[in-house]
Amino acid sequence: MSPFARLFSAASRAVSTGAKTSPFTLVIRGFCTTATHYKGNEPKWGSKKYNRERKIKLQSATLLAEMDPEIEKQLLPYRAKVKEQGDKVRKLKEEGAPDIDVKKEVLELKARKKELEDMTLKLSPADTFDRAKMSDLVKRRFFYDNSFAIYGGITGQYDYGPMGCDLVDNMLAEWHKHFVIQERMLKVNCSILTPETVLKASGHVDKFADYMVKDVKTGECFRLDHLIKQSFEKKIADKKTKQEEKDVMNHTINILDGMTMEEMNDLVKKYDMKSPITNNDLTDAVEFNLMFPITIGPSGALKGFLRPETAQGIFVNFKRLLEYNQGKLPFACAQVGNSYRNEISPRSGLLRVREFTMAEIEHFCDPENKDHPKFAQVSDTVMTLYSGCSQMDGQPAQRMTIGEAVRGGLVANETLGYYMARIQQYLLKIGINFKKLRFRQHLSNEMAHYACDCWDAECLTSYGWIECVGCADRSAYDLTQHTKGSSTKLCVERPLKEPRMVDQVTPQPDKGSIGKTFKKDAKVIQEALAAMSSEEVLAMDQKLNQDGEFKVAGFTLTRAMVPSVKREQKKVHVEEVIPSVIEPSFGVGRVFYSLLEHSFRMREGDEKRTYFSLPPLVSPIKVSVLPLSSNQEFIPFTQHLANALTELNLLVRVDDSTGSIGRRYARTDEIAIPFGVTIDFDTVNNKPHTVTLRERDSTDQVRISMDVVPETVSKLANGKLTWEEVKEKWPKFTGQETTSES
Amino acid sequence: MSPFARLFSAASRAVSTGAKTSPFTLVIRGFCTTATHYKGNEPKWGSKKYNRERKIKLQSATLLAEMDPEIEKQLLPYRAKVKEQGDKVRKLKEEGAPDIDVKKEVLELKARKKELEDMTLKLSPADTFDRAKMSDLVKRRFFYDNSFAIYGGITGQYDYGPMGCDLVDNMLAEWHKHFVIQERMLKVNCSILTPETVLKASGHVDKFADYMVKDVKTGECFRLDHLIKQSFEKKIADKKTKQEEKDVMNHTINILDGMTMEEMNDLVKKYDMKSPITNNDLTDAVEFNLMFPITIGPSGALKGFLRPETAQGIFVNFKRLLEYNQGKLPFACAQVGNSYRNEISPRSGLLRVREFTMAEIEHFCDPENKDHPKFAQVSDTVMTLYSGCSQMDGQPAQRMTIGEAVRGGLVANETLGYYMARIQQYLLKIGINFKKLRFRQHLSNEMAHYACDCWDAECLTSYGWIECVGCADRSAYDLTQHTKGSSTKLCVERPLKEPRMVDQVTPQPDKGSIGKTFKKDAKVIQEALAAMSSEEVLAMDQKLNQDGEFKVAGFTLTRAMVPSVKREQKKVHVEEVIPSVIEPSFGVGRVFYSLLEHSFRMREGDEKRTYFSLPPLVSPIKVSVLPLSSNQEFIPFTQHLANALTELNLLVRVDDSTGSIGRRYARTDEIAIPFGVTIDFDTVNNKPHTVTLRERDSTDQVRISMDVVPETVSKLANGKLTWEEVKEKWPKFTGQETTSES
Repeated sequence: MSPFARLFSAASRAVSTGAKTSPFTLVIRGFCTTATHYKGNEPKWGSKKYNRERKIKLQSATLLAEMDPEIEKQLLPYRAKVKEQGDKVRKLKEEGAPDIDVKKEVLELKARKKELEDMTLKLSPADTFDRAKMSDLVKRRFFYDNSFAIYGGITGQYDYGPMGCDLVDNMLAEWHKHFVIQERMLKVNCSILTPETVLKASGHVDKFADYMVKDVKTGECFRLDHLIKQSFEKKIADKKTKQEEKDVMNHTINILDGMTMEEMNDLVKKYDMKSPITNNDLTDAVEFNLMFPITIGPSGALKGFLRPETAQGIFVNFKRLLEYNQGKLPFACAQVGNSYRNEISPRSGLLRVREFTMAEIEHFCDPENKDHPKFAQVSDTVMTLYSGCSQMDGQPAQRMTIGEAVRGGLVANETLGYYMARIQQYLLKIGINFKKLRFRQHLSNEMAHYACDCWDAECLTSYGWIECVGCADRSAYDLTQHTKGSSTKLCVERPLKEPRMVDQVTPQPDKGSIGKTFKKDAKVIQEALAAMSSEEVLAMDQKLNQDGEFKVAGFTLTRAMVPSVKREQKKVHVEEVIPSVIEPSFGVGRVFYSLLEHSFRMREGDEKRTYFSLPPLVSPIKVSVLPLSSNQEFIPFTQHLANALTELNLLVRVDDSTGSIGRRYARTDEIAIPFGVTIDFDTVNNKPHTVTLRERDSTDQVRISMDVVPETVSKLANGKLTWEEVKEKWPKFTGQETTSES
Repeated sequence: MSPFARLFSAASRAVSTGAKTSPFTLVIRGFCTTATHYKGNEPKWGSKKYNRERKIKLQSATLLAEMDPEIEKQLLPYRAKVKEQGDKVRKLKEEGAPDIDVKKEVLELKARKKELEDMTLKLSPADTFDRAKMSDLVKRRFFYDNSFAIYGGITGQYDYGPMGCDLVDNMLAEWHKHFVIQERMLKVNCSILTPETVLKASGHVDKFADYMVKDVKTGECFRLDHLIKQSFEKKIADKKTKQEEKDVMNHTINILDGMTMEEMNDLVKKYDMKSPITNNDLTDAVEFNLMFPITIGPSGALKGFLRPETAQGIFVNFKRLLEYNQGKLPFACAQVGNSYRNEISPRSGLLRVREFTMAEIEHFCDPENKDHPKFAQVSDTVMTLYSGCSQMDGQPAQRMTIGEAVRGGLVANETLGYYMARIQQYLLKIGINFKKLRFRQHLSNEMAHYACDCWDAECLTSYGWIECVGCADRSAYDLTQHTKGSSTKLCVERPLKEPRMVDQVTPQPDKGSIGKTFKKDAKVIQEALAAMSSEEVLAMDQKLNQDGEFKVAGFTLTRAMVPSVKREQKKVHVEEVIPSVIEPSFGVGRVFYSLLEHSFRMREGDEKRTYFSLPPLVSPIKVSVLPLSSNQEFIPFTQHLANALTELNLLVRVDDSTGSIGRRYARTDEIAIPFGVTIDFDTVNNKPHTVTLRERDSTDQVRISMDVVPETVSKLANGKLTWEEVKEKWPKFTGQETTSES
């Protein structure tokens, strides 16, 4: 049943927490050839079952196209097992089997999918990536590190150093160009301190929780699923454990995601699990809300939270944004900023943190027309799509164009498809590896009941496939919730082709009576009355007739306060429509981390020389200037070049320290500087003065006139010139001709 | 006594809270010709007296140079009164008079300064600025507005809409170029959730407070000084109040700043002040810490706060940053990000808010050499300096070059002067009015005892002179505090000209014994022991001999744990130095607000046509494209131009709505779009196609070939071309030649 998960948007998963899902109902999508439309048995809103953490798991790591036929043969039986189970689930759903039976089979389906994934990864060619080496480089050159390290550090919080900070800034600057400027989006920057009422309306106050157990003596807290997994892993590693017990535990780990709190509680009791630290007993599990509570102002009366996502700031400003856009749809609004989640046990470095940056877009459009005027421009984009159907059939992801996917109904509409293609273009531009990128469709049971389609851009890293960007069609959910919560209509007026006569019922309140009774609250009540639909007014009228009382906005009104209602026929020229929202949502820290892994390299034959092969576009520093030695003659040249480069707003690193030139190159490679200029004796002696210009990835060098260097590097850094073009124009550098003596 | 104020850096004032000052001790600076150096009577750390809010007051609004001689004549007696009192204070200090006497006279000095300021403003030519009109425009075009307005809004929090958001982003992009790139600074992005220990060390936990009283029945909170002021103002407005009573109250309002909590409490009792809302009694005043408390993680054990300033993140990372800079001084590190202060009663719009963006720079340099290599480049910069001396003498601010100011000792050192000049360059570049900008030196009693000089860049607005940027020499204070708090040395090694023999005393701990007793805490203790200076080790040794016990890092050690200390002569080649910090600190929201006021305009003869005359560099949208009418022939031209402009990463606004062209121009002016392109029938009919290009401030138009428009606008927007040059090259536009029919 319900995908509470999706209440919190793709972002929930893309960023920090991982989605909350429960596979209770598996709604089969229409586009699956073997499936039928599933109707009825809608997820139940308010059910307790969906407060669940979904761990990031490795899913079919390699694409069919690239898979060795020999390996594929070995995978066949695993694929068949998934398919068999997928079909079984579909059949049960068709027959309208009881939820409890369906749920059992879905858990089994998940376990088989996991086995297939594990086997695929096991059989895939080994990756040379070495996480320890990268971590060392990241720490040593201060890309990022634990916050407050001199005070002992703190888990789940990181400080970005000069390199990390500039890399993120460059990623976001490109994001701004790629999305905000190119799509002419609006932009907002909203408060992080958020009053409780707002997050009550959005659903976060009631539902945004994980399960937690505590050490009965020390009070130390553990996330329930983490605890069970850790406990099982310990037992599995124990030689004394029998193989069949191990199998059961492995299987259970694979289905933890789908379990209820009660089922997990039972596991804790059955296996008599204790605190892994003190071996003390544990409390029963409780739900722990992941938002940071806060009180605003000195009195303590105004309760609030640090926002758990940036999206709500856009929704609550919808009316002003629509006005700004002169009342017209579609339009999109972007926001970049921090969000906060009080994780029970942060882990996996940057992938699960308490404080993180999101970049979210809300594209508001007509629910009946989700075509996109620029779709033709992206329709030929080839993407790796891992559909819900493929996931249920045990098949790998498929390559196809986004045009095919939308035409075939695999992706729900053009606007969603357009953003998916634009997201991919952006990720590739900043340096994400196409072979390690896929778009995974949410299974219906992962989606909120109102969402009609949702795809996550996932990057393959040493932690498995990581959800980095969500892209969801959230329908009218959010605006509807805030309309209810605030009694402010959040909708647009759509002109009708022909005017229409409608029955309209409006309340006729006695303003004097309401004012006298409720004083300063009267305004709120008046507004709430004015915002009621005809149906609601009729219902109120009936209730007032029956009981003499009616509740509005939390206040009890009497018949005397609303003596009558007015019924009339009205000619209307417009209809009110609540827009649909398409939401691309970026977890900036996760994209950043994936980018680091994807661009981490070791020089062939020298494993100590590690570096990042980042595109110049996002490299923190664009160019280094290295005098060959500390010879005084080099100084004016070094300074002149560094200043000229800085003039062009290029971030420059001068390294005039004593190391050998090779060593200093290695140092600039480490921090991903794509181009390096060396001043040597030829620079001093030649007329016109020349320098060597080196490219990081190839380590090729050319000899180039010093006066064209700033312009050349600027063009290289901005993608207006390629290194190949530079190599064609200037001679290859092999060694300097003159030395100090000549 | 102490300027607790300055503990919290210039930023405290520049951003949100206003400084906490108390004029108990007035340390006379050496550069005042009539003054002597003041020694002794150092501010007492830990005194309760400095938790005080300093309101932003209007200070001599106009410069001497621009003041009408007639007005100056009227001001003379007021100036003389200030001077007389300033001299009296100096004399008392020279004589070493008791604090209490000095304090009394300083309060009187403040009152007289305020009288002079009020009179100066009163006599100054009236400004045509209309705050209500600007507020209307700001709200109507969504530059910014109250957060969560559909839920009733919340004081002290603002959402920036598309225009405000882009303007701030452009201001910060320019800030990044001007400071970070041009000065090759490092940059960090640190956690906002900050553990208590860190803010304990910095002093914020104990001292970062305002005085507050509560309504005894409703619990509603009021800031003590605000309450008193409001109460007096009401009484002063009352016709029944006698003139002499009014004078006393006016005088008291002027000196509230310098009062202790006790003195203010006495006022509340003496005048029997009540809650202005309910007329209930009030509690005695208490100190209210302005930080937002928070608990990190689920157990509630780790207490922390939302950071009150960004600076601390840089200080705690000093070691890594120094390493990153290869151990060398000087270097600077910048950080831009949110900070939080739980104001008791936020007011004055963006000037006093609970959530705000700061842009801070910490420049670390050798305490014995604060020269700056690029000072010569700025030394001719003319600035308006309002020195401490002028303030005490009742004189207005003076214009002089920063070179003169540093040479004459008015500004303490080159690095401080360099940053002051660079701050001014930046502010002028983004559009701050030079005539409404001054640098005000802190009086000694406003400065922390460790700060050696501090200047605030203040902008004149309708709220008076607003502190927008602080620029302080904070000496070694912050690094010293965090060295103590974390037991991690935060210093640099400076090579000695000649090696030196020193007596060194090191503790010889019994590691086994410490390990056995303190287990996991042993490491902290070992580190604390290792970090002790020779003097500290000697003191410990003596204490252990006397008492058998000694406290280190909160743990009690016995003689057995440190059986002995080792004394030796050691040859040292380097000395450890704690760097000085020069801190420019920008309150981004305050600069933003001042910029709006300084650029707000009304068209002559048409007060309804209001607009912002922002420089193209920071204008949110650079260009508008307006088809003359909804004629279908215009559409391809409009689209082509808009796309071509967007290609160059210019933010474009297409307004194809139905209003007249004049009305649409007015609408683009409102949101500060500096350039507008109109497509008319000549565009369609002429070959080559031409369009009109209009400049916002002059409303001049030229007729220009359509194909050069994108490049031309791009150059105009980036300051590479002036409007004058465009007007010289292209013919003035007076009216189109052809119409639809031709």
